Amino acid sequence: MRDVYILGVGTTKFGELWDLSLRELASEAGLKAIMDAGIYAEDVDALYGANTSGGQFVDQEQIAALIADYSGITELNIPSIRIEAGSASGGAALMQAYLAVKSGQYSTVVVGGVEKMTDVPSEVATEIIGGSLDAEWETFFGATECSIAAMIARRHEFEGKAKRENYAMLPVISHKHASMNDTSHFKNVIKIEDVINASPVAEPLTVFDNAPISDGASALVISADLKKINNASHPIKIKSSSAANDFLSLHDRKSVDSFRAVKKSSDSALSLAGLDIGKIDALEIHDSYSIAALIQLEEILGKDAVKMTEGNDFYFNSSKPLNVSGGLKAHGNPLGTSGLYQAVEATVQLRGKAGQRQVKDPRNFLIHNMGGLGTTSVSTVIGVD
Amino acid sequence: MRDVYILGVGTTKFGELWDLSLRELASEAGLKAIMDAGIYAEDVDALYGANTSGGQFVDQEQIAALIADYSGITELNIPSIRIEAGSASGGAALMQAYLAVKSGQYSTVVVGGVEKMTDVPSEVATEIIGGSLDAEWETFFGATECSIAAMIARRHEFEGKAKRENYAMLPVISHKHASMNDTSHFKNVIKIEDVINASPVAEPLTVFDNAPISDGASALVISADLKKINNASHPIKIKSSSAANDFLSLHDRKSVDSFRAVKKSSDSALSLAGLDIGKIDALEIHDSYSIAALIQLEEILGKDAVKMTEGNDFYFNSSKPLNVSGGLKAHGNPLGTSGLYQAVEATVQLRGKAGQRQVKDPRNFLIHNMGGLGTTSVSTVIGVD
Repeated sequence: MRDVYILGVGTTKFGELWDLSLRELASEAGLKAIMDAGIYAEDVDALYGANTSGGQFVDQEQIAALIADYSGITELNIPSIRIEAGSASGGAALMQAYLAVKSGQYSTVVVGGVEKMTDVPSEVATEIIGGSLDAEWETFFGATECSIAAMIARRHEFEGKAKRENYAMLPVISHKHASMNDTSHFKNVIKIEDVINASPVAEPLTVFDNAPISDGASALVISADLKKINNASHPIKIKSSSAANDFLSLHDRKSVDSFRAVKKSSDSALSLAGLDIGKIDALEIHDSYSIAALIQLEEILGKDAVKMTEGNDFYFNSSKPLNVSGGLKAHGNPLGTSGLYQAVEATVQLRGKAGQRQVKDPRNFLIHNMGGLGTTSVSTVIGVD
Repeated sequence: MRDVYILGVGTTKFGELWDLSLRELASEAGLKAIMDAGIYAEDVDALYGANTSGGQFVDQEQIAALIADYSGITELNIPSIRIEAGSASGGAALMQAYLAVKSGQYSTVVVGGVEKMTDVPSEVATEIIGGSLDAEWETFFGATECSIAAMIARRHEFEGKAKRENYAMLPVISHKHASMNDTSHFKNVIKIEDVINASPVAEPLTVFDNAPISDGASALVISADLKKINNASHPIKIKSSSAANDFLSLHDRKSVDSFRAVKKSSDSALSLAGLDIGKIDALEIHDSYSIAALIQLEEILGKDAVKMTEGNDFYFNSSKPLNVSGGLKAHGNPLGTSGLYQAVEATVQLRGKAGQRQVKDPRNFLIHNMGGLGTTSVSTVIGVD
């Protein structure tokens, strides 16, 4: 099987971008990625678009076609396909693009994610986000994603597996890293007491346990074309990408406070990459909710993860850098985009170009993107040879 | 590259299925396909789901995860990804599943499409279908998909490329074939005058020029696993699958009454399959609107296509059988499902099991699924060795 490399990356700023439309965001990220890859539009064989709920946020489906239009590549009639897997859409699109290149049908592909969430009032956005839950058994009865996360948190504490401070620490780390990233939605540094004492959303979770509603787009150019790989200024390898799913409804799962699919997809991605977790220098995980981030860490790193939140292990200059981008929590969470921004961050870090927040000499990143609360899980290993 | 076969197919009836929910439809089709393939749920490595607008029709995203849930395969944590490309979602999902198996990462995959359109009033459905147009430049100004199709028809007649009767003939053919298919939405036989004189929707198009709003689900099991292929009662080969796109907005295109992407994807699929159009024994095309079907035929078969509508060439027992399933027009058009039902029909025909409407000894089917009006085009060649 042939090797697949990331040749270029591009991203917009994340945030409440009132003056930019979905199509403007998408094309900004796409064109930046194409320029960064040092290729031309006519070198692109296909476009994979990630988007969670464009039909509901901005009345637009066929979003991949729209992105191609506004990026000026439709003239060439290249295929444009949208991938949706709730908030794991970005990771899932990267995986499909990677498999399409590996299959031999395409050589060079643009994979871009975009979400424009702030054109609707935030209570409507919360309802749309609830589309990733089970419509008939959860949302119909009033559940929101945050309320489900809160139930998971309560259970996890009741089982004695973690204390409030363990998961309250994770937004603190993300905000610290986001403060050093130009494209972040939030740049304020916060303390653990800020998280615990902020306005409650669904107790015990407060506003600081929740990732924000953001606009934003990110894109990557990936390729297996040896000539283009050699021409690129700093290609980075996709070593593997693997997905797994769990039951949509919490009540169907054997355990409500573990994420089986996360363990399965991360183990599978590591195994396909021929690496064990010790060889992973840094992690980007899906911190849509602090408690969800903690449980992901337990599934990926094992039980030590809870203890590690009590020290400094997860900062960018420590032993296991975590969410050095600022994470979904503080860099922002434009749903379908988030998984692709994780890959942009990994690429920038592996190139050694992350400035103030640069991890020291990383060789391998594991990025984990999630749909719903552990329903869809996509793990990708990105590294240098 | 390894060969990929269709091992099993399953479909629900299409129509206004008030008593069945999205999840029931999806699991009925999925389980039928698994049983037909002679495999067990634990043999499935991944699930690809096709759906156009579940977020808007039934407030549900992460639809692939839902299908996996209700088909009883989530227990195994297999990955479930949804593909969306407007009404080409089914064809696009089949293509992604095919590429994922070809890439070597998965051996056996279920690809299933489902759409539940009749839970909303038909004027809301029309608006949701409009999501496949350009939201800012077309739908915002009141365009519906049928009104855009009507403009294409007017132009085509004005250019002298076809007469009203040429495209009015295509629904007649589809209804004839649908009358011989148990799972059809409509089984009534119609005449060319019925089409022309029916209630107008957007002149010159009448209700009989439009495919209906339907509920329905279809699924296939595809595999590259030699043992499973040998065990299957009647495996059929996917010889190629290729996609192309055109501008979303009609006003951006060089010609408003041709579909460049259709020519590109069908030429590419034939070339990848190593066949020319003469070797294609039957066609299933996307007859969402009669005029759209005629233009597809012109792109795929060349200019003779218009003349062929004046004879009997397109009936199941003639020289170039067309939409022997009954097409989207009469078998039904549950958006994201339609492209997969085309593949189900091709498989049943190639197995020689299509009963009354059986094409005589077919060896190769070309199926063409389309998003919007020529925006996304996916062509797949299915055949026997």
